[in-house]
Amino acid sequence: MSPPTAVIVTIGDELLNGDRLDSNARTLARFLSDEGFEVIRAISVGDEAASIGEAMAEGAARASLVVSTGGLGPTLDDRTREGVAERWGLRLIEDPTVLEELERRFRERGYHELPRTNRRVARVPEGAGTLSNGHGTAPAIHLEVPGAGENDRTLLLLLPGVPREMEGFLRGEGGHLLRTRFGGRVQRLERRVFHTTGIPESALAGRVEAHLAGVEGVRVAYRPSLRGVELVLSAGGENASERLSAACGRVGEFLEPFVYDDPQGDLAGALGRALLERQLRIAVAESCTGGLILGRLTGVPGSSEGVAGGVVAYANRIKVDALGVSEALLDAQGAVSEGVARAMAEGVRTRMGVEIGAAVTGIAGPGGSVEGKPVGTVWFAVSGPRGTHAERLLLPGGRAEVRERAVQHLLHLVFRSVLAPGRESRPGADDPSEHEAGMS
Amino acid sequence: MSPPTAVIVTIGDELLNGDRLDSNARTLARFLSDEGFEVIRAISVGDEAASIGEAMAEGAARASLVVSTGGLGPTLDDRTREGVAERWGLRLIEDPTVLEELERRFRERGYHELPRTNRRVARVPEGAGTLSNGHGTAPAIHLEVPGAGENDRTLLLLLPGVPREMEGFLRGEGGHLLRTRFGGRVQRLERRVFHTTGIPESALAGRVEAHLAGVEGVRVAYRPSLRGVELVLSAGGENASERLSAACGRVGEFLEPFVYDDPQGDLAGALGRALLERQLRIAVAESCTGGLILGRLTGVPGSSEGVAGGVVAYANRIKVDALGVSEALLDAQGAVSEGVARAMAEGVRTRMGVEIGAAVTGIAGPGGSVEGKPVGTVWFAVSGPRGTHAERLLLPGGRAEVRERAVQHLLHLVFRSVLAPGRESRPGADDPSEHEAGMS
Repeated sequence: MSPPTAVIVTIGDELLNGDRLDSNARTLARFLSDEGFEVIRAISVGDEAASIGEAMAEGAARASLVVSTGGLGPTLDDRTREGVAERWGLRLIEDPTVLEELERRFRERGYHELPRTNRRVARVPEGAGTLSNGHGTAPAIHLEVPGAGENDRTLLLLLPGVPREMEGFLRGEGGHLLRTRFGGRVQRLERRVFHTTGIPESALAGRVEAHLAGVEGVRVAYRPSLRGVELVLSAGGENASERLSAACGRVGEFLEPFVYDDPQGDLAGALGRALLERQLRIAVAESCTGGLILGRLTGVPGSSEGVAGGVVAYANRIKVDALGVSEALLDAQGAVSEGVARAMAEGVRTRMGVEIGAAVTGIAGPGGSVEGKPVGTVWFAVSGPRGTHAERLLLPGGRAEVRERAVQHLLHLVFRSVLAPGRESRPGADDPSEHEAGMS
Repeated sequence: MSPPTAVIVTIGDELLNGDRLDSNARTLARFLSDEGFEVIRAISVGDEAASIGEAMAEGAARASLVVSTGGLGPTLDDRTREGVAERWGLRLIEDPTVLEELERRFRERGYHELPRTNRRVARVPEGAGTLSNGHGTAPAIHLEVPGAGENDRTLLLLLPGVPREMEGFLRGEGGHLLRTRFGGRVQRLERRVFHTTGIPESALAGRVEAHLAGVEGVRVAYRPSLRGVELVLSAGGENASERLSAACGRVGEFLEPFVYDDPQGDLAGALGRALLERQLRIAVAESCTGGLILGRLTGVPGSSEGVAGGVVAYANRIKVDALGVSEALLDAQGAVSEGVARAMAEGVRTRMGVEIGAAVTGIAGPGGSVEGKPVGTVWFAVSGPRGTHAERLLLPGGRAEVRERAVQHLLHLVFRSVLAPGRESRPGADDPSEHEAGMS
């Protein structure tokens, strides 16, 4: 049984003149795919009612479901209601339930009466139903029209364009409506997401494919970013859970040193919890990353228990004064060196009186390269009660990319050392020849 | 004369299952709008040749220009060439010039012969022209088909999907082709962008509208973000430059305290240059922002001359030990207070031996609020040779938003104090009652 088809329609002039990135289309695409629909097309149109109606009708002619977003607000350039009504020859009728909820909400906010423009959002095409988001703003609208779905009917679901409101409907009454309406026809995809760090996409893919050889009915996708690669396994249909669990079991063991678990997919969050559980505190000394490591660590709510703070030692003078790096060492090895990285990590650990000190010093570019130290050269050090580990990577990309990769790699090193002190994971560089490491 | 119309077609399964955000559509929309086209629709389809051909044909039936992106690579799921050829009944012919360039590039990379899969990208629909991006990867393809343009012809321009490559074609031969082909019919929009900081969108809009009352033929747009509001004035047609200059003159004077100039639109970049020009150095002490201010400042290439570094004093112990904040002050006023912000700014300035010290201490949430200090309470201080200025804001939003707003506001305060020491700009908070400031 093939999955029901869906068309996405995103509405707004700002999508066609480039003023706004269409993130709603992606949110809807992911949601509908996960719910078991096959999204066959996404269309963006401007605010004119005729264009909106035309796009909705094209969607209905192709698919069992059309979901639109945008054009439901109270202002005159919100024309989705009109577009749909005109296209299918329906009148717009004021919905008393919607009107009542609107009036109540406005009274609660201290208005004597509902502003005339806001009254517009209570108008819905005749025969349509409405969904409330509980916030008393524009309702979502759903109606059945002649179309390409089973029994030649297509469901139109009109959602507001404010991302937070749209997502609220998907999680709530909108998602519920789709599951009721399409019932047994959809096979929801189950997916498991592994957040990995410290392993390049090519290496990850090679090992995943080897471990999943012969496994049928499980889709594998990789989402690489500067923060690592998300591995997504998904399956639908009968026994989807069993197939997925079997596949996860096969890849789980080799993935273990590279996987972290965090609701936001943030390695800093996983590290923060690991520090709390072990009652450890960290301080960081940053040169080329200039504060971004501490920024990531302190971005996690409640991080103050495990993260003491640190020093951004951009100037060499500060490496000496605030971290106790010796001037002789700086002269002999240069600021980007194993010795200075170790001294920074040990210095910040001692001076801030914490269990773990970490440091990064490198050349983010575009300038600053010297003989034998090209742009992208970065030294990392992690210092703990059992000693100091240091390693060097040659990171690709421009300044921002080198810095973000360096942040993630340091978090990775600290995370591994907190989880399994003394055992270091394999390096994350694509080319092992560009990598040095030593434990002292 | 109405502008020529354009349809955007973005291609790839990853756009329809939600794996990728469609940033190319926005880049194209902005580019085409600036070039004077009216973008009337954007369509995303998957990788099947038939869907691609259908979307291209629908575009041709509506518009004078169809620009697609994606599906031109060497792998078997790159089917844009096939989709177009099949739809218009054209053969795919190997282009000898393209083939020659490909072979040369692969020889340079040390290949003995062109891999079979890469040979695919030399195939173009008969009658089509190609554009080279000079990188020896897939060429762009252009051809004329029956359509809705003048003389019933529509131009199809097929661009690759890798954003960097697509943008290269727009800046280079692709943009040139459009200007030649549509010549006098397009009126390129001229635009002026003002990057503002420290003024909310509503206040900015009110003042802009008052100053532009009676001005005709200039479009005004606001692009708000946590980093401030971009004000965009644009005009097209005859005397566009004159009208635009007149409008800019009207708003320029009142905007002056809120505007900064930077090629990347980054206030940290503008501040970095201002520091260099005046041969000043800055150090920053951060509490709730946790390193993000220093991260922004050091993100600017060449920033090491003006940015010495700083201290992330997340724990109170570090405020005392590394910055010299007195324990008595911390006990009396609390960590989030005017006194502590001043002491942090003065401490980091003195200890790091620089001309300007700046500090932020606040409650980013979700926890940490105390009586009289709700989440979002942030104290800022800037210390220079003429004294220390401190002010408090109550910032809206969740943890990440409070932090990013605080970063931007501190950069704004430092920027104003560097440009015009002793003169402070008006506060950026929406509600003046939530704002305190003092100069000592």
